[in-house]
Amino acid sequence: MSIITLTTDYGLKDHFVGALKGKLLSEYSEATIIDISHYIDPFNTVEASYIIGAAYGSFPKGTVHLIGVDMEFNRENQHIAMQWNDHFFIAADNGILSMLTHKIVPQKIVSINIHDRLPSDATDLDVFVKVACHIAKGGLLNVIGKEIKTIKQVTNLQAVVSDDGNSLKGYVIYIDHFGNVVTNITKKQFIEVAKGRPYEIILRTKNIKTILPNYSSIATSEKYEIKNYEGEKLAIFNEAGFLEIAIFRSNPSKVGSANSLLGLNYRDVINIVFS
Amino acid sequence: MSIITLTTDYGLKDHFVGALKGKLLSEYSEATIIDISHYIDPFNTVEASYIIGAAYGSFPKGTVHLIGVDMEFNRENQHIAMQWNDHFFIAADNGILSMLTHKIVPQKIVSINIHDRLPSDATDLDVFVKVACHIAKGGLLNVIGKEIKTIKQVTNLQAVVSDDGNSLKGYVIYIDHFGNVVTNITKKQFIEVAKGRPYEIILRTKNIKTILPNYSSIATSEKYEIKNYEGEKLAIFNEAGFLEIAIFRSNPSKVGSANSLLGLNYRDVINIVFS
Amino acid sequence: MSIITLTTDYGLKDHFVGALKGKLLSEYSEATIIDISHYIDPFNTVEASYIIGAAYGSFPKGTVHLIGVDMEFNRENQHIAMQWNDHFFIAADNGILSMLTHKIVPQKIVSINIHDRLPSDATDLDVFVKVACHIAKGGLLNVIGKEIKTIKQVTNLQAVVSDDGNSLKGYVIYIDHFGNVVTNITKKQFIEVAKGRPYEIILRTKNIKTILPNYSSIATSEKYEIKNYEGEKLAIFNEAGFLEIAIFRSNPSKVGSANSLLGLNYRDVINIVFS
Repeated sequence: MSIITLTTDYGLKDHFVGALKGKLLSEYSEATIIDISHYIDPFNTVEASYIIGAAYGSFPKGTVHLIGVDMEFNRENQHIAMQWNDHFFIAADNGILSMLTHKIVPQKIVSINIHDRLPSDATDLDVFVKVACHIAKGGLLNVIGKEIKTIKQVTNLQAVVSDDGNSLKGYVIYIDHFGNVVTNITKKQFIEVAKGRPYEIILRTKNIKTILPNYSSIATSEKYEIKNYEGEKLAIFNEAGFLEIAIFRSNPSKVGSANSLLGLNYRDVINIVFS
Repeated sequence: MSIITLTTDYGLKDHFVGALKGKLLSEYSEATIIDISHYIDPFNTVEASYIIGAAYGSFPKGTVHLIGVDMEFNRENQHIAMQWNDHFFIAADNGILSMLTHKIVPQKIVSINIHDRLPSDATDLDVFVKVACHIAKGGLLNVIGKEIKTIKQVTNLQAVVSDDGNSLKGYVIYIDHFGNVVTNITKKQFIEVAKGRPYEIILRTKNIKTILPNYSSIATSEKYEIKNYEGEKLAIFNEAGFLEIAIFRSNPSKVGSANSLLGLNYRDVINIVFS
Repeated sequence: MSIITLTTDYGLKDHFVGALKGKLLSEYSEATIIDISHYIDPFNTVEASYIIGAAYGSFPKGTVHLIGVDMEFNRENQHIAMQWNDHFFIAADNGILSMLTHKIVPQKIVSINIHDRLPSDATDLDVFVKVACHIAKGGLLNVIGKEIKTIKQVTNLQAVVSDDGNSLKGYVIYIDHFGNVVTNITKKQFIEVAKGRPYEIILRTKNIKTILPNYSSIATSEKYEIKNYEGEKLAIFNEAGFLEIAIFRSNPSKVGSANSLLGLNYRDVINIVFS
């Protein structure tokens, strides 16, 4: 079985995603195609980067991840394919993959160069389809591209430690379906900086002094039913390893969420102070 | 072929659903995974209950239904797996499955107890994935849990007959994509109470005196084109067997719907009076 | 492999799409089911027509396309199945397929007549499921219907050339996820009318004098980074062959789109004047 995952900003109203799947199956009828997301904020490479980074690890090694965000081939955006941590990624070289390469050195990166071998009316998506199916069938990266050593970086993706080492400054990189707010502060970085010290996550309302192991841990007293804690704010490290500020059992369209209730929006700064 | 269906409140913007599928395919590459809904209102167990009850019957016997709504394991919410009507259901014991067990006695229910056998960083979802794949592969419920006899009940899920037997009082349990309003009054209960008597469904505007066999039956006169009936209100029993109040060919974003035009919202009371 | 595609106005919140897939797999477990769209504007046959016309060509020949829009069987809407350009289409005879038959003569059309052979509680969807699986398994159209020669036409689907041949008048038939505006003016018709003459696409703001080969071509000067061109309006022929008015890297929820910024809505007229 070869899995090809899809992460795009195409939305699900138009025919784009269905047509993409049709092209993939036309090229490689054995492919198992799995949607990761088609609601990436249009042209938002930071969001695409977070989502693919959070999702890839749930798939078997060898999976091919096609990323259709800001992918039009032009003088600034080359098309690249990357083998990394035993997974394969196909994207435009617009910074999306740099969040991964910051963490682990890639096994191989190629600049895709099959454009001239395709029919003259081939689209950028046709290029990605050809490459995805080639890799899913077990083909080598060198056949579809020329090896390169560096890719475009997205700056400001990592949280910053203050000079005195007593605070960590990150920002909101994603707001999820529940209105929970994901920051770029990772568990790994937090542990390194905290060195076991007490800390406060600074918020406009009351600060948070404890990062919980899971949402339900907010219900500290067994005297009360868990539903009495609905609406309380909390912090956890989410499955992807990032600090998340949440409202317990939030519902954005009804009771509100961390996003709406705490006034935390995309790109807002989050500070943690150690003492 | 083993089918695993998914019903969650995760939404489709985040990576959660894609990651869940990746985990399922990592565990059992032969699984056929089908989405039922990922837009259950967050933490709304009544809505989840209605949707899974309406959908399961369209799948072959033996299908495994994974329900990811309010599923965090805590002192109130055990994880359960249930064999019922030759289908399998995996959910938290938060009342979601009680709408099914009201109708037919379950074949077997177990309280899942594999949590300690998984790696320490395993999530609640990992537990569900393990159990779903175990069952889909033909494994026994006893291997992954301890048999229990009762599950948590959700009250008020059933419509109530008045003491004199002359009226039936239900309420709105779901509003669909077309703005049609689904009540908890079933066709079975209606027939039992009506005993062939005339009836009126009481609405703020003109009452409805006939429940139609299908939407187009609203077009009673062959003198007029069917489109002349657009916007008229009507009642039918939907495929799931529940009374539905609808607007003929409604479009919530344009002409309005039963929800908007008749002012019928989630939890609103619907009365049927028999004479 | 047999592919069955789905194009409906059911939305993804309800159980309808999942249940449809369950029925298809119950009938034909080997089917590969691909979603084209479930967010067709409710009962909007023009939109359904555009989407299926834009998508079908990405699928292999022999694919079966099930269209669940305005499909309730009634005295005006027969159910039909059509073999066309080596693809198969199942829909109500409400005009959806006429956009295809304008372009190429169908290979065969039948009026589906299996309704009486199904159980009495079979729904319209059950009919479509039976027919789709029958065809996907290689069954003949004559077995499930009676051959017919004509289908219902949707008027006004084609752009109109002025009497003097100096202008082409179309209108907006679709607004996509990015807020780009798709017109019913095809590349083929444009070339026939233009005969190489200069032209202007008339807009409320500054007219467009050049239709670009792709979005990034708006960045004409290499002196500036491509992102400096974000927000500029442009015209291209999209992959489906229709004239599209777009905003470069538009984001409807943030910077706006052709739809919002140029005030172009569904059914609005677009004129091209030749000189």
